[in-house]
Amino acid sequence: MKRQPVVIALDLGGTNVRMGVVDAVGSVRHSVSRPLGADRSVAGVTGEVARRGAELIDWCAGAGLHPEALCLAAPGIISAEDGTVIFSPNLPGWTDVPLRAMISEALGLPAILENDANAAAFGEFWKGGGQGTNHLVMFTLGTGVGGGIISDGILLRGSRGMAGELGHLTVVSENGRLCRCGSNGCLEAYASASAVAEILGERWTDDSPPPPTAREAYLLAAAGDSLCREVFREAGFYLGVAMADLVNVLNPEVIVIGGGAMDAWDLIIPVAESEMRSRAFRTTDLARRLCVRRATLGDLAGVVGVAGIYWCGVHP
Amino acid sequence: MKRQPVVIALDLGGTNVRMGVVDAVGSVRHSVSRPLGADRSVAGVTGEVARRGAELIDWCAGAGLHPEALCLAAPGIISAEDGTVIFSPNLPGWTDVPLRAMISEALGLPAILENDANAAAFGEFWKGGGQGTNHLVMFTLGTGVGGGIISDGILLRGSRGMAGELGHLTVVSENGRLCRCGSNGCLEAYASASAVAEILGERWTDDSPPPPTAREAYLLAAAGDSLCREVFREAGFYLGVAMADLVNVLNPEVIVIGGGAMDAWDLIIPVAESEMRSRAFRTTDLARRLCVRRATLGDLAGVVGVAGIYWCGVHP
Repeated sequence: MKRQPVVIALDLGGTNVRMGVVDAVGSVRHSVSRPLGADRSVAGVTGEVARRGAELIDWCAGAGLHPEALCLAAPGIISAEDGTVIFSPNLPGWTDVPLRAMISEALGLPAILENDANAAAFGEFWKGGGQGTNHLVMFTLGTGVGGGIISDGILLRGSRGMAGELGHLTVVSENGRLCRCGSNGCLEAYASASAVAEILGERWTDDSPPPPTAREAYLLAAAGDSLCREVFREAGFYLGVAMADLVNVLNPEVIVIGGGAMDAWDLIIPVAESEMRSRAFRTTDLARRLCVRRATLGDLAGVVGVAGIYWCGVHP
Repeated sequence: MKRQPVVIALDLGGTNVRMGVVDAVGSVRHSVSRPLGADRSVAGVTGEVARRGAELIDWCAGAGLHPEALCLAAPGIISAEDGTVIFSPNLPGWTDVPLRAMISEALGLPAILENDANAAAFGEFWKGGGQGTNHLVMFTLGTGVGGGIISDGILLRGSRGMAGELGHLTVVSENGRLCRCGSNGCLEAYASASAVAEILGERWTDDSPPPPTAREAYLLAAAGDSLCREVFREAGFYLGVAMADLVNVLNPEVIVIGGGAMDAWDLIIPVAESEMRSRAFRTTDLARRLCVRRATLGDLAGVVGVAGIYWCGVHP
């Protein structure tokens, strides 16, 4: 009997490798997360990815499944076309590394390579919060703010694979907060978990207890703390400004929100949505038909998404 | 002998109809501009478009050319797919008008319909300042600020044909100037010709002479007037903020600037370009390879572009 085809999907994060075996209808047949080793050299990481891939290939053999491709998602500037990591903040020293070819050769399977945020957006579009739509914008609000864009069913990669840097939309053009990208007034400098903690630290008047983390701030805000509530409200306001920009530029059907900020949904998203609707061009037409939805795939969005990019044939 | 195929392209503006006969390589074989009559009813405009189209069909017969299609560009919310004008600020009372079918029937030729700003962007991409690239953003700075986006050779229309409203990117999120769209802090409220004149009017201290128009302000600025220079510099700053947003979101190869502001290029664009480059994410990679270019098709961008959309087969 012919074994059912699946792909092996690996999502290289900052500290972990998330891995899954995904079939053609998007079901995750098996998944596991492993810490990424300390050796971030090209040889170190590709060796680890190849070992992890081989483990999953073995798993497939035991489960009667046929792995037909490797699907890799990695952070940074990725050329999906060339299959190379051009630059990655999490992989210091990597420049124009042909990761796709190296992994494909090591494991004897065809491979694709995609930016991790693009993969996550495609995952939510294919099988998550944006399923059933054709035009999607995804924001991932975590330590930083990332994103991805699907327009008319097509993943927008841009000329160098760098489309979708939604965290670096300017939301304060003059005297904006310094962003770790080197610019000022970026969304990430107001609406990321790090920004929320940093802003609270600046406004915190007590020395004891020390200023809270974003997670603690959420608990305090939920318990009624007005300073914490205000910082989340501001994050929501600036997120709404950025959302309106994307509505005006891309006219999506759905905005999907993922990442750790989903825990603080009630403190951030209603403010953001209201601000977006008040700013979006011709509110009645554009914003009325637009939905804001929760991401539903959690940490597996990248794994499901990069598999979906393979199964839907939308890799270059 | 077989007559050479051409299309009849009509671009419905606020006050004029620009018309051209365009061949498959983008040469404009004939063009003419006529004032749009005062009767903006559906019957009035479609009747006029049909008469103008018939004149051009006659012209083709005399020139030995074979018109194979009608290509219409119109302002407002256009469904290119359905061939309808959903809403248009210049065509009051029009709602879901099947303009494509009406004109096609009146003239006995197949027809396509596209938003005018999208058509202009496609024109500059196909035969103008963005020729030879695959990822383009176009800003048209005139009385208002419009735009269009090509990503990987594909015109982005959005879910309701409303993508590319670049004039309504927020560039001042708090206490921004009121925009005619009803929102605050839009690019158009700072960098359009109307905004330049309005801001000058507010800062003008003399009662005689009266505050200048945007065109007069350009002449004064060129002659060294510091207030006028400052207002153009501010327009350039905010344009640069919006350009950086699009670089971060879409990662284009080229930004094409068209419209009346091209006359004031030296006062606006160097400031905008410098601001964009300082804000764009990972300046070295993204902004370094990006060009800012002048539009080259002038008033014929929409005519050439809507013809190009037909000849390139990118109509829905």
